[in-house]
Amino acid sequence: MSLDNLLRPRSIAILGASEDFVKISGRPLKFLLDKGYPGRILPVNPKYERIAGLPCYPSIAAVPETVDMAIVAVPAGAVLEALEQCVAKGVRAAVVFSSGFGEMGAAGRDHEQRIAALARRSGLRLCGPNTLGFMNNFERVMATFSQAGEGETPPGPVGFVTQSGAFGTAIFALARQRGLPLGYFINSGNEADVDFGDLLAYVLEDERIRVVAGYIEGLRDGRKVLRAAARALELGKPIVMVKVARSRAGARAAASHTGSLAGADRVYGDVFRQAGIVRAQNDEQLLDLVSAFVHCPLPQGPGVGIVTQSGGAGVLMADRCEELGLQVPELTAETCAALRKVVPAFGAVKNPVDITAQFIADPELLVRALDLVLADPRVNATVFYLGLMERAAAKIAADLASIAKRSPKPLLVAWAAAPEAGLRALREASVCVLPSATRAVDAIQGLVLFAEGKRRFVAEREVRTRAMHPVSVVPASIEGPAAGERRVLHSDEAFRLLEAYGLRCASWRLVTTPEEAARAAEELGGSLALKIESPDIPHKTDAGGVRLGVSGSASALRAFEEIVATVRARRPDARILGVLAQEMVPGGTEMVIGLHRDPQFGPLVMVGLGGVFVEVLEDVAFRAAPLTRGDALDMVRSLRGARILHGIRGRAPADLDALVDALLALSRLATDAGQAIAELDVNPLIVHADGQGVTAVDALVVREGQ
Amino acid sequence: MSLDNLLRPRSIAILGASEDFVKISGRPLKFLLDKGYPGRILPVNPKYERIAGLPCYPSIAAVPETVDMAIVAVPAGAVLEALEQCVAKGVRAAVVFSSGFGEMGAAGRDHEQRIAALARRSGLRLCGPNTLGFMNNFERVMATFSQAGEGETPPGPVGFVTQSGAFGTAIFALARQRGLPLGYFINSGNEADVDFGDLLAYVLEDERIRVVAGYIEGLRDGRKVLRAAARALELGKPIVMVKVARSRAGARAAASHTGSLAGADRVYGDVFRQAGIVRAQNDEQLLDLVSAFVHCPLPQGPGVGIVTQSGGAGVLMADRCEELGLQVPELTAETCAALRKVVPAFGAVKNPVDITAQFIADPELLVRALDLVLADPRVNATVFYLGLMERAAAKIAADLASIAKRSPKPLLVAWAAAPEAGLRALREASVCVLPSATRAVDAIQGLVLFAEGKRRFVAEREVRTRAMHPVSVVPASIEGPAAGERRVLHSDEAFRLLEAYGLRCASWRLVTTPEEAARAAEELGGSLALKIESPDIPHKTDAGGVRLGVSGSASALRAFEEIVATVRARRPDARILGVLAQEMVPGGTEMVIGLHRDPQFGPLVMVGLGGVFVEVLEDVAFRAAPLTRGDALDMVRSLRGARILHGIRGRAPADLDALVDALLALSRLATDAGQAIAELDVNPLIVHADGQGVTAVDALVVREGQ
Repeated sequence: MSLDNLLRPRSIAILGASEDFVKISGRPLKFLLDKGYPGRILPVNPKYERIAGLPCYPSIAAVPETVDMAIVAVPAGAVLEALEQCVAKGVRAAVVFSSGFGEMGAAGRDHEQRIAALARRSGLRLCGPNTLGFMNNFERVMATFSQAGEGETPPGPVGFVTQSGAFGTAIFALARQRGLPLGYFINSGNEADVDFGDLLAYVLEDERIRVVAGYIEGLRDGRKVLRAAARALELGKPIVMVKVARSRAGARAAASHTGSLAGADRVYGDVFRQAGIVRAQNDEQLLDLVSAFVHCPLPQGPGVGIVTQSGGAGVLMADRCEELGLQVPELTAETCAALRKVVPAFGAVKNPVDITAQFIADPELLVRALDLVLADPRVNATVFYLGLMERAAAKIAADLASIAKRSPKPLLVAWAAAPEAGLRALREASVCVLPSATRAVDAIQGLVLFAEGKRRFVAEREVRTRAMHPVSVVPASIEGPAAGERRVLHSDEAFRLLEAYGLRCASWRLVTTPEEAARAAEELGGSLALKIESPDIPHKTDAGGVRLGVSGSASALRAFEEIVATVRARRPDARILGVLAQEMVPGGTEMVIGLHRDPQFGPLVMVGLGGVFVEVLEDVAFRAAPLTRGDALDMVRSLRGARILHGIRGRAPADLDALVDALLALSRLATDAGQAIAELDVNPLIVHADGQGVTAVDALVVREGQ
Repeated sequence: MSLDNLLRPRSIAILGASEDFVKISGRPLKFLLDKGYPGRILPVNPKYERIAGLPCYPSIAAVPETVDMAIVAVPAGAVLEALEQCVAKGVRAAVVFSSGFGEMGAAGRDHEQRIAALARRSGLRLCGPNTLGFMNNFERVMATFSQAGEGETPPGPVGFVTQSGAFGTAIFALARQRGLPLGYFINSGNEADVDFGDLLAYVLEDERIRVVAGYIEGLRDGRKVLRAAARALELGKPIVMVKVARSRAGARAAASHTGSLAGADRVYGDVFRQAGIVRAQNDEQLLDLVSAFVHCPLPQGPGVGIVTQSGGAGVLMADRCEELGLQVPELTAETCAALRKVVPAFGAVKNPVDITAQFIADPELLVRALDLVLADPRVNATVFYLGLMERAAAKIAADLASIAKRSPKPLLVAWAAAPEAGLRALREASVCVLPSATRAVDAIQGLVLFAEGKRRFVAEREVRTRAMHPVSVVPASIEGPAAGERRVLHSDEAFRLLEAYGLRCASWRLVTTPEEAARAAEELGGSLALKIESPDIPHKTDAGGVRLGVSGSASALRAFEEIVATVRARRPDARILGVLAQEMVPGGTEMVIGLHRDPQFGPLVMVGLGGVFVEVLEDVAFRAAPLTRGDALDMVRSLRGARILHGIRGRAPADLDALVDALLALSRLATDAGQAIAELDVNPLIVHADGQGVTAVDALVVREGQ
């Protein structure tokens, strides 16, 4: 259902309206009047007959006209009744400022659930509770008591949705200081009904919005945000997001703040990257990125041209580029030669280009050098650093504005200790200007990341759409267990499941007698591992249930007898299904792959490097299923130890293609299985030399409980 | 020799002085006059009789009085002669603005070496060339043409030494914007004579200076900076440093900028940490840290109290604290109980503490909450976050100033979108205020790091002093080789050297006949490794020169014969000294330790985790010798894979003490050997379970060449 009634209402009732405009219940009315909201303003409060010249009604029922949206500014205890009256009146949307709900413990949560149930039942779309509301500056809908309403609120191409009210207000004010006007500023509050993903999706579709910024602590429904992100890529609109509660300390603070569950931060990082959402580390970087997206075209690649009046700043920016995975290409011989003609001899013409302070005396130097660097085929984006320039500010700003305007590539300006006149002129000309060298580079990285995400989205659109529709048939083994049935599949079943999806497993036989073990040894040949198979013995080695390097039928027969005898002695009550005889797989790169059900994002595919990498460095990556080939490749490359796959210590490179195929197989399985698989781990998966494929050696599959 | 003549001259000659005050050669005179330099100003230029009312002399020889310092603003080609005339006149110091030296290729380097030689020969202390000079704002010595001289230049407790002129000027201006006055601003230029370390050391000793900031691309003499850093810890004055040229791209840029060699950035990071130098990532962070050091007392530990008016900012700051290794302790029950009485119910009282926007209506809430948090015994530093507050700014600032004043612990204020009046009031009251939540946390980390460094310095002062004086005797084997002698020690010599320093090596015998091999097998017992010993065979395995797991005298005899025969066949011209028979060391944690001669910092001790950690992640740490026990422990703990030493996969924790002893042994060896060892690697060093010590299995020792 559209949120038009909430965010673009033609009439607004204010329940609990006050004539004291300093009060929370007074401010929205003041703001609506001050900003000239063009719709109907309908104060409701039995205490007044009129407020600020407007008729005030004793109850919502008494309002003699249609009400699209109600602002609810009454004490928590009166909210449910107020909303019921709204529903009775036919109001379609409400924003509830009142706090005292989910953020206040068990009683508050119960109370919140009741208003959420009312919303679901009635179709009333509800923002809040515990929100400072929102502004839609296009339609001048000031449904907020935020301090942000006090200053100028011109509309602009940026939509901002935030789970934090006070922090969001500060970010709003910082954006205003930078001359970045916001079209929407929305605090989602406790999200009893309308949640962050709904608001994001709505704001994105407004054609006046070109960039969406977000601040979150945790998501109710991550899949909704991923759908919005896909739509954003389709529309070519970047989403820039600060996600906090990254640490244990932060998660603890967030839990006490909004009662929301943060989830594993690493999953957010990985899944956002997959979805083309640009993640900012903090409020400052959020606005740096928004400014870059608002003012700059997208770069076609990661090549950065660095132009400075200071060698030192050039070095610092080159460092930062390399740290962030951007490139600082040497310029072509033609560009260098042309630069040499304009740059003083004590400057530098490769990249970084140091035009020296000479450009103050010779303004043409700046224009020609920047035009040359921007035109270099190896350069996809350019940053120009300068400092101070009190006297020449206006001229420099005008030159930069015309250079930026005629270039199809982004030009960012890093101006340290800039004179106010220079900043103003650049902003008015829609040039992205930031106060520091490194922050400009960080902003370029955001542009590059989003441009890449968008290109990949377009290239893989068809594949992705196909992947959305399951083609395989779910094997019976993974359909949810009936009551009393096992949740953990037997090894035999787990291997069959993986093989059904095209994942090669180390050859195995489940044998139940010594003679079968002997026969398996003959059939499988080579060196074998024998492992007890029992639903009651998770730690096989501790129970004496494992033998490695068993060769030949006689040894296998004896090993079977010894294993079973040892396990029987140590664990007399364990149910023994048999012994798994399995070929020993020759060396390769040990990895771990798997599926996990994430509470926010649904089934995730996981990959990690085995051994110490997983155990000590937790070097794993996640992506939401379904995966494209590009996703799978990207997640492998994002591992810190990924270099191992290229072959170290003189080893051959590993079969990356086969590893990617294995991840895509798990992705298909996840899609087919829907909710049926709670967890799946292949550990280890041996990745052989290039062209030799992969082999799953051990697998754990846990079905979702009833 | 003191730099007083350079930096506190009583008379200044300006060679090439111009009456055009916009020119480089005109500005110093203008600045000296404008700022009221109290000493003698002596323009030298045959073109003028007077400049700005001062007598102008045709040559330095013609100046009729003593000249302490000369500013040289003549073309590069005339510099050497000008300096020769200065020396003849008895001038003791000079600053050379002129560019066209080391930064301009071979001819320039040659030219620079000639002026450097003149300085060495004559005792003239020379700053530059290719520098924009310096200001000493205490004595109003404006020996610079930097734009920075144009605004206000009140003296203050911060000294700033920078290798970059233009970037340094921007940083100066940014500091001024923040109300952080600089006592010294010095650009070291090409450092033909006086280098960064000299200037750092000088500025540190000025008792009016409390904090020193630095910007470097690379050091001529790192040891000089380390000595200054030790002195800084003794004086309790922090050094905050931006070191660029961290990346390959940055190093390339730096090389073309000042011609300086960047060196391995990791070494700088590690050695600075050891020396208590606080490293900033960029100019913005440099000034954030300087501001914190200027305004705040030092914290006694890493516990951060977070107080906000916004839950969201609290979460963000808690995240950042954890990322940086700071703690966000839960407050004591007493503090929580007391806070609960003042903080509104919808706020939070643990940590982060959310006092909510209520404090605007109730100013006592802010004061009481902050006093309580600052007084909590688990809190060592507190950050308070707020946003906007146009109306209440003055009152809030006054309250914060008085809270900060009465607390012995640091209080930092993060004020987003702050009104100018609030900022000004806080700065005047010497309260550290920063514009963002995360930047305030970053600044606290700097305070904590320096405070730790200072405590460790005091605690280990005696040990460190002792370590400076070698006590052992250098074994003959590591004295530099005579001409024609080997640079690489034989394994036998290398092991003896390590054992002389108390490092246990896997038992070995160098055997030269099959019978000796058999006897060695009996004596050593157990399983052996046999390895060919030849100065001509660096890759023993490839030459067929290694056998592992050899047991018993008969096998050893046979293995000796086979190894020698195989190697003779494959490498007929190799000199074979014998075969090294060595015990096979049972498992443990594989590590690598060693010594490296660093061009900037001299002998460094290295430690790394073996296997993939070294090869793929380059997980190694360095410290300059001599090491204290604290240094050795800290370098091991700084490894990313350090957790392995605590015992993973159910393994016992490793013998950390013995590892530390081994590093200290190498440190002693480095001190004793002086320049004699070029490189030493013990790889692997097996660290056994706690209490079991370490064993060196293989060692490479390379002596410094003649």
